[in-house]
Amino acid sequence: MPSAVVVGASGYAGALAARLLWRHPLFELAAITAREDAGRPLMELYPQHRVPLVLEELDLDRATRADAAIVAYPHGTAAPVVAALLARGLRVVDLSADFRLRDVAIYEHWYVRHPHPELIELAVYGLTEFYRDQIAGASLVACPGCFPTAAILALAPLAAAGLIADVVIDAKTGVSGMGKAPSDANHFVAVTENVRPYGVGSHRHMPEIDQELGALGAPVPIAFTPHLLPIDQGELLSCYITPTRPLGQDELDTLYAARYGGEPFVEMVSAPPGVRDVRETNVCAINVVADERTGKLFVFAAIDNLWKGTASQAVANLNLMFGFDERLGLR
Amino acid sequence: MPSAVVVGASGYAGALAARLLWRHPLFELAAITAREDAGRPLMELYPQHRVPLVLEELDLDRATRADAAIVAYPHGTAAPVVAALLARGLRVVDLSADFRLRDVAIYEHWYVRHPHPELIELAVYGLTEFYRDQIAGASLVACPGCFPTAAILALAPLAAAGLIADVVIDAKTGVSGMGKAPSDANHFVAVTENVRPYGVGSHRHMPEIDQELGALGAPVPIAFTPHLLPIDQGELLSCYITPTRPLGQDELDTLYAARYGGEPFVEMVSAPPGVRDVRETNVCAINVVADERTGKLFVFAAIDNLWKGTASQAVANLNLMFGFDERLGLR
Amino acid sequence: MPSAVVVGASGYAGALAARLLWRHPLFELAAITAREDAGRPLMELYPQHRVPLVLEELDLDRATRADAAIVAYPHGTAAPVVAALLARGLRVVDLSADFRLRDVAIYEHWYVRHPHPELIELAVYGLTEFYRDQIAGASLVACPGCFPTAAILALAPLAAAGLIADVVIDAKTGVSGMGKAPSDANHFVAVTENVRPYGVGSHRHMPEIDQELGALGAPVPIAFTPHLLPIDQGELLSCYITPTRPLGQDELDTLYAARYGGEPFVEMVSAPPGVRDVRETNVCAINVVADERTGKLFVFAAIDNLWKGTASQAVANLNLMFGFDERLGLR
Amino acid sequence: MPSAVVVGASGYAGALAARLLWRHPLFELAAITAREDAGRPLMELYPQHRVPLVLEELDLDRATRADAAIVAYPHGTAAPVVAALLARGLRVVDLSADFRLRDVAIYEHWYVRHPHPELIELAVYGLTEFYRDQIAGASLVACPGCFPTAAILALAPLAAAGLIADVVIDAKTGVSGMGKAPSDANHFVAVTENVRPYGVGSHRHMPEIDQELGALGAPVPIAFTPHLLPIDQGELLSCYITPTRPLGQDELDTLYAARYGGEPFVEMVSAPPGVRDVRETNVCAINVVADERTGKLFVFAAIDNLWKGTASQAVANLNLMFGFDERLGLR
Repeated sequence: MPSAVVVGASGYAGALAARLLWRHPLFELAAITAREDAGRPLMELYPQHRVPLVLEELDLDRATRADAAIVAYPHGTAAPVVAALLARGLRVVDLSADFRLRDVAIYEHWYVRHPHPELIELAVYGLTEFYRDQIAGASLVACPGCFPTAAILALAPLAAAGLIADVVIDAKTGVSGMGKAPSDANHFVAVTENVRPYGVGSHRHMPEIDQELGALGAPVPIAFTPHLLPIDQGELLSCYITPTRPLGQDELDTLYAARYGGEPFVEMVSAPPGVRDVRETNVCAINVVADERTGKLFVFAAIDNLWKGTASQAVANLNLMFGFDERLGLR
Repeated sequence: MPSAVVVGASGYAGALAARLLWRHPLFELAAITAREDAGRPLMELYPQHRVPLVLEELDLDRATRADAAIVAYPHGTAAPVVAALLARGLRVVDLSADFRLRDVAIYEHWYVRHPHPELIELAVYGLTEFYRDQIAGASLVACPGCFPTAAILALAPLAAAGLIADVVIDAKTGVSGMGKAPSDANHFVAVTENVRPYGVGSHRHMPEIDQELGALGAPVPIAFTPHLLPIDQGELLSCYITPTRPLGQDELDTLYAARYGGEPFVEMVSAPPGVRDVRETNVCAINVVADERTGKLFVFAAIDNLWKGTASQAVANLNLMFGFDERLGLR
Repeated sequence: MPSAVVVGASGYAGALAARLLWRHPLFELAAITAREDAGRPLMELYPQHRVPLVLEELDLDRATRADAAIVAYPHGTAAPVVAALLARGLRVVDLSADFRLRDVAIYEHWYVRHPHPELIELAVYGLTEFYRDQIAGASLVACPGCFPTAAILALAPLAAAGLIADVVIDAKTGVSGMGKAPSDANHFVAVTENVRPYGVGSHRHMPEIDQELGALGAPVPIAFTPHLLPIDQGELLSCYITPTRPLGQDELDTLYAARYGGEPFVEMVSAPPGVRDVRETNVCAINVVADERTGKLFVFAAIDNLWKGTASQAVANLNLMFGFDERLGLR
Repeated sequence: MPSAVVVGASGYAGALAARLLWRHPLFELAAITAREDAGRPLMELYPQHRVPLVLEELDLDRATRADAAIVAYPHGTAAPVVAALLARGLRVVDLSADFRLRDVAIYEHWYVRHPHPELIELAVYGLTEFYRDQIAGASLVACPGCFPTAAILALAPLAAAGLIADVVIDAKTGVSGMGKAPSDANHFVAVTENVRPYGVGSHRHMPEIDQELGALGAPVPIAFTPHLLPIDQGELLSCYITPTRPLGQDELDTLYAARYGGEPFVEMVSAPPGVRDVRETNVCAINVVADERTGKLFVFAAIDNLWKGTASQAVANLNLMFGFDERLGLR
């Protein structure tokens, strides 16, 4: 039974990854680490996860005894830890943005100076539905951002068919997407009974969406605007596409059915999904509409940002890296 | 001091109109009526409004003693009451859709057979910022829908300048917009921690938006999709415009400042507004962004759907119809 | 592998019971029935449960092919169905109040005329922690109400030791506790940003609490007041006890540890629990405080009203009735 | 027209006090100050208040030009500022706890070393309904804590009549009561869909409640436990009283009607109030129940913690100090 560590398990995503591995039938959760909360039981921070382990300082030499790691550090600080773990022979799923962008210049434009650009080409982009084979053989998987996960799943079939002339993505997200550090923006009083756009024209997930959809054939850059909602978990992307040629509902349905028919974690649904439909699952629910009135196509995609958008997708990737069924431990 | 009645004061909008008139310095609230809750004190249904009146059956002859009426009935049932009140000499602000659409065929396509098509040309569309002069002389004002109010305010300056080549409107609304009748859709458990598109491609506010923006010069039909959010009051419209020619931020700012500079209830703001910023006010807050990355224009407009979107806009209209400052009773 | 049916699976509790049995390792979910929604896929009403079955009309003869039933009907309508299923040889867990009260006169005072008083003595009260042995041999288990579940678990150790001179229970509950039928009281707009007591002095769970705590030794009647909160699932009971003699924290801790030390689904916690800590679990989290300042004892107990308060407790009972580990299918 | 300053206007209470004074018919809002946000327009922090002033550093000599001050500083830091303002001849309403407790030893037990104990006897406790005459002549008013405001209003008639043998107060509060500084406890994700007791046995409002109710005749100490709810504003106190002798509903109603009959801001209501009923008002709504079943009395009291619980009560006090109708500027 392979063992895994979660590095950075005091944040929302790392803690959830720990919970999923703790109950996983074929991985042993060897240790969980944190930079600031070392010494505290995870139960104290996340009683709902019921993982009876204590957060430790990261000790790279001890970590070596594990076979794999999920790293949940902020961008810029993740890469050096990933590098050290790889050097010690672990297979790594990284939740940060450090290895998602293939072009280091683009990374450095949007983030910081890249600490380990030499590792970028090692990394496989961990969108299971599109890189399954490469993930299976990878030593390093860059787990996609939550918005890119939903955006690419929503639009890939159209992009790949060259059917996108123009696209607007209006995203709605729960507060957990902003992370656990308290701020004016995630104070309950600021969020409740409110909705507000943020990161307009500047959200760092945009180049990631551009990279993947561009590679498939969509025109880039893509308009993308997130909005903060008074919910904790959940992400809904409303995509408005001007097609390169007229498309009817049947053709649209067929196109998506063909692409996602066998996918265990993509559900094509017949009405626009709510985020509650996919809460605490690894599922992306997608509804497609050919709007006769305007000639546009609408695609609505819902995920749980902490699950499919981060931690459960990471576990699916880890499953593949070790030759397991990707559904293991995810119901 | 002119007197007014609110016909249909047991719903959210009618009750709020009653509250605003009850505290209005220059109108006397003569009576409030309801079809189903007649005999009940309004305090029982809406303690927060503190209007110490009892809901009555509508008695058209008694209503005649008032000078004006705000009618808050559903579409189709409003028109006959409006007709009767007009015949008795009252000036009427109608909150329903019955007199908003100038083309009876379009009305009948989206709603029902029109009970009083002959009155349509009497009606002035009550978007204060655009029809102020006509409202002043009107006997019948059709108060705009909540989404059209925000959509037209958001896009009119661009439409009038012929700058809209294409536009997508993604709307987010609170639950009060669905009305007071309990249903599966507004059950707390269905709404909390959720967000879901509804009325996709079929919302009845679309032809109203088309009518007004089309008249100004925008291409119609316009893509419009509302989403239900776990908030009670508030509406945010995110508008994504492909312009007919490139526009920079300065030109965009100048265009909106020129149009709305003197408007008491339109606030141009320098960051995307949240709906809490305008809660319980007659204000529409608008933020405009020229997005260099995509060449698109983004316009974000926030209103309180029950206030500016319905009841306080009705009172502003009533103020104008009686020669008062439109701000009276609205702070 | 024994098979089970859920009768009344269109409500919150029945649907959740269906979900738990659908994924249960040792029960086969043979059918789900509903009175009003027969013919609809459960996925349509509860996509989040992912149970790919269609709701059927209840056919007692077909139901006979199952070995067990969970009945989730309202009080008064449950008893006849329970009687029919028992007559056909099924073992039944009833979620209604029909078989919880041992004194038919008390039942009829608080509810309705009892349709099958002769079955009352057959029924075992399904509070697993207190009636484990009787449940194992029972053909009919009356699953406790959600408030009594938490109240009895919170107070039983004190009651059994004769330590309660007086007790006040202030309960806070989520909206799902009121059921799925839309009403003015569960409309989102009525609930959000609000908190309100209800059923003051008249809640039907009071005689059930009295019955069980009285049997253990507590003075009855007990003061109990529920409050409706803007949350969907979760119940917190704050119990304020005047003890019959002074008690310190150590003695209190020891008393509860002794009673609940081996219980798989009772967690004694060192700080007051939040309902999120136990959401979607069969756990009751309890914190006890000996308040030096007032000499009173405080007991805080949190459960998920739909899980431990109803459906997952029903599954635990079913496990016991068939000789299985009570934890099966409940993680 | 007297002028007033708000010292500490960047917090929730100070900002609301600024809004109320900005629209007050008989006070001029001369300046608003803040320790950390000086230089920022208040519109930036609180767009919803629409106060077009800029936060300034506190300059005691400039502040002298005003006639009055509302001080909204934390305990311990308020007293020195209050002392300085009093020395310069201003009349002061202090929102902190610094001058609420008459016994300096009790203050220093619960808070910190008192910076200006010599001023304590100058201060009048600003619960308008009980100290109206003293407030009128005061130079310093200590505005009550939010919980004590509701608790004393709820229980005073019983306390004064010697009818309280024992009392439990279970309090539910919105998140704004915890203040504006972001923390783990007020992060949206920690609060939504949750409810949790806090400050059990140690909340600093307890000695204040004891002081006032004890003076009226209630036995002290009083059991008091607050709970944090997923709402922003609002406080509900559920009080469970064991009376010294049996009381019926009529006698209870008469007792409260006699005490509060003429009070403009206390509403006796016939059903348990929700906090939404009093949101954004200076009203305390009270419902009293003589529970036949247990012989106990239940008193439910609802306020808006930021309004009646803090800022609007401060303005009512300021009105009285300047000889105005206490209702001015509070509708």
